[in-house]
Formats: sequence, C-alpha cells, structure tokens
Amino acid sequence: MSGFSDTLKALSCSTPYYSSMASLTSRLEHSVTPDALRSYLAEFISTFIFVFATVGSVMSSRKMVPDAAIDPSSLIVNAIANSFSLAVAVYISANISGGHVNPAVTFGMAVGGHISVPVAIFYWISQLIASVMACLLLKVTTVSQHVPTHGIPQEMTGFGASVLEGVMTFALVYTVYAAGDPRLGPLGAIGPLAIGFVSGANVLASGPFTGGSMNPATSFGSALVGGSFKNHAVYWVGPLIGSALASILYDNVVFPVQVPAIADRVGV
Amino acid sequence: MSGFSDTLKALSCSTPYYSSMASLTSRLEHSVTPDALRSYLAEFISTFIFVFATVGSVMSSRKMVPDAAIDPSSLIVNAIANSFSLAVAVYISANISGGHVNPAVTFGMAVGGHISVPVAIFYWISQLIASVMACLLLKVTTVSQHVPTHGIPQEMTGFGASVLEGVMTFALVYTVYAAGDPRLGPLGAIGPLAIGFVSGANVLASGPFTGGSMNPATSFGSALVGGSFKNHAVYWVGPLIGSALASILYDNVVFPVQVPAIADRVGV
Amino acid sequence: MSGFSDTLKALSCSTPYYSSMASLTSRLEHSVTPDALRSYLAEFISTFIFVFATVGSVMSSRKMVPDAAIDPSSLIVNAIANSFSLAVAVYISANISGGHVNPAVTFGMAVGGHISVPVAIFYWISQLIASVMACLLLKVTTVSQHVPTHGIPQEMTGFGASVLEGVMTFALVYTVYAAGDPRLGPLGAIGPLAIGFVSGANVLASGPFTGGSMNPATSFGSALVGGSFKNHAVYWVGPLIGSALASILYDNVVFPVQVPAIADRVGV
Amino acid sequence: MSGFSDTLKALSCSTPYYSSMASLTSRLEHSVTPDALRSYLAEFISTFIFVFATVGSVMSSRKMVPDAAIDPSSLIVNAIANSFSLAVAVYISANISGGHVNPAVTFGMAVGGHISVPVAIFYWISQLIASVMACLLLKVTTVSQHVPTHGIPQEMTGFGASVLEGVMTFALVYTVYAAGDPRLGPLGAIGPLAIGFVSGANVLASGPFTGGSMNPATSFGSALVGGSFKNHAVYWVGPLIGSALASILYDNVVFPVQVPAIADRVGV
Repeated sequence: MSGFSDTLKALSCSTPYYSSMASLTSRLEHSVTPDALRSYLAEFISTFIFVFATVGSVMSSRKMVPDAAIDPSSLIVNAIANSFSLAVAVYISANISGGHVNPAVTFGMAVGGHISVPVAIFYWISQLIASVMACLLLKVTTVSQHVPTHGIPQEMTGFGASVLEGVMTFALVYTVYAAGDPRLGPLGAIGPLAIGFVSGANVLASGPFTGGSMNPATSFGSALVGGSFKNHAVYWVGPLIGSALASILYDNVVFPVQVPAIADRVGV
Repeated sequence: MSGFSDTLKALSCSTPYYSSMASLTSRLEHSVTPDALRSYLAEFISTFIFVFATVGSVMSSRKMVPDAAIDPSSLIVNAIANSFSLAVAVYISANISGGHVNPAVTFGMAVGGHISVPVAIFYWISQLIASVMACLLLKVTTVSQHVPTHGIPQEMTGFGASVLEGVMTFALVYTVYAAGDPRLGPLGAIGPLAIGFVSGANVLASGPFTGGSMNPATSFGSALVGGSFKNHAVYWVGPLIGSALASILYDNVVFPVQVPAIADRVGV
Repeated sequence: MSGFSDTLKALSCSTPYYSSMASLTSRLEHSVTPDALRSYLAEFISTFIFVFATVGSVMSSRKMVPDAAIDPSSLIVNAIANSFSLAVAVYISANISGGHVNPAVTFGMAVGGHISVPVAIFYWISQLIASVMACLLLKVTTVSQHVPTHGIPQEMTGFGASVLEGVMTFALVYTVYAAGDPRLGPLGAIGPLAIGFVSGANVLASGPFTGGSMNPATSFGSALVGGSFKNHAVYWVGPLIGSALASILYDNVVFPVQVPAIADRVGV
Repeated sequence: MSGFSDTLKALSCSTPYYSSMASLTSRLEHSVTPDALRSYLAEFISTFIFVFATVGSVMSSRKMVPDAAIDPSSLIVNAIANSFSLAVAVYISANISGGHVNPAVTFGMAVGGHISVPVAIFYWISQLIASVMACLLLKVTTVSQHVPTHGIPQEMTGFGASVLEGVMTFALVYTVYAAGDPRLGPLGAIGPLAIGFVSGANVLASGPFTGGSMNPATSFGSALVGGSFKNHAVYWVGPLIGSALASILYDNVVFPVQVPAIADRVGV
C-alpha cells in the first residue's frame, strides 16, 4: 500500500506502456492525459523546491563567509538543506508522479521499464525547467549574488569525479527502488526520509571533491544560470550510468519480482 | 486515517461551515464550542513551543558569538531548532486543531474553505498572542538579551524579499496540504516531519537574505518585543500570498478531490 | 495501537494501581513483579544511553576546543546528541517501561495517575543510578576529562532559569503525552522522534542560558561525578513543576479522555 | 509485520538452522541458496554505502581544514554522515539480509541463535570486502587523499577505549534488537532511523576519544587501505563483546520470548 507503488500501478493501469502493440502515436497520447500532465506539474514543483533549497543554501553560506568552499559548517548547511528538501520533494509528489525529482532517477526508471520513454522525456523537461527557474529566482531576488556551479578540484580527473558521482547516484537510486517496494511493509512509510538521508550523507562525503550533485537537473540549472559548464559532463555521465546500474541490479538480482501468488499476498 | 484528515472531518461534522444557510450568528456559535476552544488552546501551545525554540535559538547564538548573523554554524543552530520544533508543534496539535502553528497556513486553509473565517480569526489571535508571550518570556528570563527581528540586507528590495518569503511559504503550505491528504496512505505518518524539514531547509537557503520566516506570527512577536517593525510587511505579504496560491493549486490542479466512490475507498 | 499505550494498558492490567482498596503492601508487591523489574532495567538502560551521549558530547567538544561553551558548533554537537539519543532511548523502552528516561516525566505520569507512586520511586532510582554510572564511565575511560555540569550565566537568576527549564520541560512532557495518545492514529509511529526533536530544539534555544537539561537525572549524575551542585535546585524545581502542569493540562483540558464508546472505537 | 522480523522468519523457514540433526554439510548448503546469496549481496551493498559515507565524510573534512580532528564542525559532518547513511543502509537491506551492515551485529545475532554460523561467516566476508572496496574507491577517485583510520589519544588506554566502544556497540545492537521486535507494533516503522540515530549520537560523544566506530568493518577497511593497524584490536574486542552482551540481555532478560499464544496474537 505504499504511495510509490500505488502511483506506479495507477499510471500503468491508465496507460499500458508495456504493450508491444502500442504505436508511437498512442504512446504520445498517453503522455498527455490529465493524470500525466499533473505528474509533470508535480515533478516541476518538487524539483523547484529541492533545487531552491540546495542551491540557495550554498549561496547563503557564501553570503556569510567568503571561503565557504573550505568551511565544514558550510558543508553541513548544504547537506542538511539537500537532505531535508529532497525528503520533502519526494514526499509531496510520491503519490502523483512517483517522486523522481531527478533526471537520473527518471532515467533508471525508464531503463527498468517502470515508465515509458515519452513520459520520461516530459519528466526531464519539467525537472530541467524547474531547476533553471529556481536558480533564476534565487539570482534575481538576492540581487547581486553569484549562483554557484558544481565543480571538481584541480588534482581530480573527470573520470574519477564521474565514478564518484556514479557510485553516489547508485546508492540514491537503489534507495529509491527499495523505498517503492511494497515488500518493505511498514518500513515503506519512511521511504522519503531514507531517500533524503542517503543524499545528505553523500553530500557530506563528497562536498569538496565533486560537490555531491547526484542530480543532473541541479547541475544543469546552476550551470546555465551561473554561466559555467566546465566539467559539466561529469554530472550527467556518472549519475545516468549509476542510476541504470542500480535499476538493473535491484530488479533482476537483489530483489527480483516474485511469483504472482506471493506478490499478491504481500501487496495486500 | 491520517490525524490531520480526522481532525478536518471531526471539525466539519460538529460545525457545518460550508452550509450556505448558516447565518453569521450560528457561525460564531460554532467557533466557541468546547472543541473549538480546545483547538485555539492547542494552537497557542504549539505556536508558543515553536516560537520559543526558533527565536530562542537565535538569541542563543548571539549570546555565544557577536557576529552570529554571518556565522554558518549559527544558521544551522537556527535551522535545526526551527525544523525540529515545527515538526513537534504540528505533531502535538495535528489531532486537535490540524496543526497550523502559522497564520499563513490558517489563511490558506480559509481560502481553500477547510476552515471557517471566524475560526480562522480565533486561530490567528491564538498564534499571535502565543508568539508575543514566547518572545516576552525569552526576554525576561535571559535578563539582558535582545530579541532579534527578521530583516533583509541593504542590497535587497522589499519586493524581492516578499517573493522569496512567498515562494518558501508556498513550499511549506503545499507540504502541509500533502501531509493532510488521506491519499498519501502510510506516508501520512511522517507528515509532521516533512513539514518541519521543508521549513528547516528553507531557513538554510534564505537565512542571510530574509531570515527564513515563512510565519507572520514569529515575525510579529519578535518585532513587537524586539521593538522594530522595519520591513515588517514583507513577512505578511509574501507568506499570505504564497499560502493562498499553494492552497488553490493543490485543491484544484495538482490533486483535485476525487469522485465520492473512489474517495470513500481511499478514505477507509 | 501505539506501543506506549499498550505498555500502559499492560501495566495497569497486571497491577491495578488505581484501586482504592489496595493496601500499601499490595502496592509494593505490584512494584516487584517480573514485569515491573524489567521496566526498571529498561529505564536504566535507556537513561544510561541517553546520559552517555548527552554528557559525552559536551566532553567531546571540550576535548576539541577550550571555549566550547561559546562555540555554536559545540552547541549543535550537544543538541543533536541529545535529540538523537533521547529518541532512541524512548524508542527502545517504549514497550517495556513506557520510555520515560527522565524523573520529570515519571513525576508527571505519577501526578496524572498513569503510574503508581512506588513504581515511580523505583523508576527514579533506576534513572538516577544510570545517570551516575554513565558519567562515571565517561570520566574513567577518558582518563583526565572533566565531567561538565549544568549551570547558568552570572546575569541570570535562579528563578528565571527555573522558569526556562520549566517551560521547556512542559513542552517535552506535553509531547510525551501526545506521543502516547492512541487517538493520534498512524502519527503514533513517529512519537519517539517527536520527543527527541523537541528536546534537541530546546537545547539549541537555551544552551548558553541554562544548558538545556529538562532532565533532573542528567543534571544530578553530572553534578555528582563532576563535583559541583551549584544552582542544582534549578534542574529539579523547574522540570518537576513544568511536567506536572503538562500532565494536568493534557489530561483534563486539551484532550480529556472521551466517553468509553468513542474511546473503544479509536482504540481499535 | 516488521520487515526485519519477516526476513528472519523467511530465512528460518527456508533454512532450519536450529535443527540439531542438521549436519555441517546441510548447513553449508543452506548458506549458498539463492536467497542466502542475495542476502550477502545486500550486506555488501549496504556496507559499501555506509563505509563510503562515513569514511568519505572524514576525508571531506580533512580536505577542507587541516585540523579537522579538533574541529567540532568536522565532528558533526562525520556524525550526520554516519547516522544518515547507517539508517539508509539498514533500511535498504532490512527485508533481504536483516540489515546488519556490521560484523558486530552479525556476531550478536549468531550468539543469540538468530543466524547460523556459516551464514554469519559469509556476512562477515561480504561486510569486510565491501568496506575495503569503499575505502579503495575513495582513495583512488580523490587521487591524493589519505584514508583516515580510527585511533585513540595518547592519555587513553586500549582497555578504556575498548570499554567505550563496547558500551556504544551495546547501545547500537540493543537498538537493532528492539527495532526488529514485532512487539514494538507501529513503532517498527522507524526502526532504521533509530539505529542510525543511536550511532550518530555515539559518534558525537566519542569522536575525539575513539573515533566512534562501533563497527569492525569500517575500522578494518580504513586500516587496511590507510596502512595503519595501531590499536586495531580495540575496534574488534569492544564491539564484539558489547554486541554479544546486548544480544543475550535482550533475548533473555529485558524482553524474553513470550508464550506462543501471546506471541501469535502480537505477531498478527
């Protein structure tokens, strides 16, 4: 009875994504039903709230101390804002869109067949626009503040940074899968908190190395508004690969779908 | 079966707010029933606890370091106190008054028709008096400490600050709506945590810009006791508009009330 | 269906405290049943864990920085340790002893008639011994470290400090009551978190003023092992009065016991 | 209906560990079933995520400030990363492997008879390899960073440090037992959070004394990759003894298994 799984069921009932007979046209039609449009709006609102708090918290630290990048307190400011706002962003959209709030999560869900490609594309568009608008709002209302972008220190390689971001996104998406699994029973109730917590813990572990993005939307929005795409590929390549691996591993190895009889029992 | 929705149901059973036949007199009578009086007391206690911790935590930082306003650690002190105490304030009154703890939330609920105007006015009075008394208590018991007020830096405009506060209050009230929605299923159990977390994340994002109020009661109580109403309008205009927008959007667009048959099934 | 209320029911089934016929002898007999002895052990373990983390976190800060008392980061260290360990201490004993972990909570429960006086006395003894032993362990294992005691700054009066501690303990015990109320429905699941959070928020608000004890056991254990009972009365008078007021208010005004028919329905 | 207890039941159904007739061969066979292999993979993933965040957060602090070991902010960075990532690590494997993520927990479970010795050995192997790989990944991707190891200050003795680690691991494992007890009712839903919180609180209390490990896997992995096994025995002796004591005390004294009739009722 988890909110997450209810959503997936509801979406798959109204829109039979997996039917091999469905033509491209019918697929596109299914991606513009009222329910689908509502889910894009939900992704927009959730991503906006998440990016606002995450990027805003870095701007907040930099407004207070010039060397925020090497201040552990500022790292805590960023990690708690990230953790708490992601938990909430997932919470408020879990029942409507599944609570992705992250193009990498959407990508993993598409790879795993839990969401159709057209719907995934609309999710991405909603997430990216929301991130850009949140960064723009922060820039305009704070007047003179610089919007910070994700980056890596000189001694690190783009490959190493991609691996770090990939491993952390793997942990995030694996947690998203676990949180949406009806077999978790009553533990399902704290799913959004688990998702927020793994994100915050990873920010603390990687802050001065890659910035702890795990989310191409955050990186893209801040890069566009902040005006620097240096090393930007790191924040797409790592998270997308990490997410796809988590998706494949969870569905097929760690916790494969059980036979119907048992699944029914658990799903009650 | 969420505590929030139970409260709404219970209130609407005993007091038929929405009946177009109800005269002003009968409405006022419904706002002074024992249940209604209890809900005002619950709002008073919850708001007192929240304002005590939130304003107290700023006084606490300032007692320790003179430049608390530009110290990221002090921002964390304030954000965690805000987040944890709001979660608790909502938690302990969820079943009695719906856990508003905030005139902006009450305003949004009145705009959405979930609470009658007379009851909303009594909620406001309870919240504002509680905030003033919490600030007075802090001032008296700490002897010489100054009660801090919300304010904005020189380079920002009142309009920009109102927009920031409005956007953050939108996120807060949207989360309040989601947390009270019975369709969230088991996720309803962590609703008060989600409400506290979105508030704390926003404080981290906006601390050095607007102070991260999102609550006219906190701003009013500290302004009255602290003796400065400079830019005070920011902390009413932004939150009230943000809350009304969240209320309208949630009820009508993102998650409209479903047809009775389905609502009954979900509500079981 | 809350664990808290189950405990209360179980205890009251096996030991009819409220019977006016019970002689002192039979009451004492009821306080040494296997279930009662287990509850004293549970209080001992929980209070030990809580005091260890709370007092230990202050010693930890002082080991790192000499001026921890005026360092906001050290206040956060103490507040999070207090918050998290109290949540856990309540969690692990909720089903066995009701999760008091605090003589003030036990006092409020006795005032409200939820626990008999002999049992309350054994609870106090368990809590106080646990606190002393936790402080002793910290002193011995860390070799040369001083065990810190709660105290108030020069400009504050003992009366003002007692009022502060009383108000904060009121908030704590009120939350304990709400968390144990079966009428909270699914929100009951997060009760221990709410109790830990209100404690942590209050520590942040009162750290440099009274130290944020709200718990006579913590204050007593650290005072005994630390060797200073200056202003110690503050940490008994305030919390005990605050707790009694919360107990009376919750049971009689805010949320009085409902008529049996309704109570049965809710209790299912 | 807790996820933890479901797992234990499921494992014990498919593998009758406790049968005194089972030969060594059949026991080994039971430890390589698909379900058992999945549980080793789950322990690997969870331990990797936990060690990555915990050790990574210390490296992160040291990258920012040279004297991170005496900086309270850096202690918070480590404690929150530890707390949040442990909660998540337990959460995502609770249903599959029981969510040990720690050789000390596995040892306690084996002492208490909740897991067979061959399975426990495979759990240990999975946990230790995961920790080593997480530390290696951090070392390689961050290029020049030193992997920190747990250690104790000069004035402390190995015995005192072992006692500290033992007491803290007792608290951790006691919480793990409570979280997996179906008699906790709805409180079972927040079990992983309680486990993460007690760990984080203990890190705050013991950071500058022993580093707050409570987990031989973390200590082993960082010691191997960091190249220093000084005082390493502290991080095995203390935790293993503390865990065994918690296991014995919980099962036999505090909360012994009830008679079947009652257990059945509670288990529903």
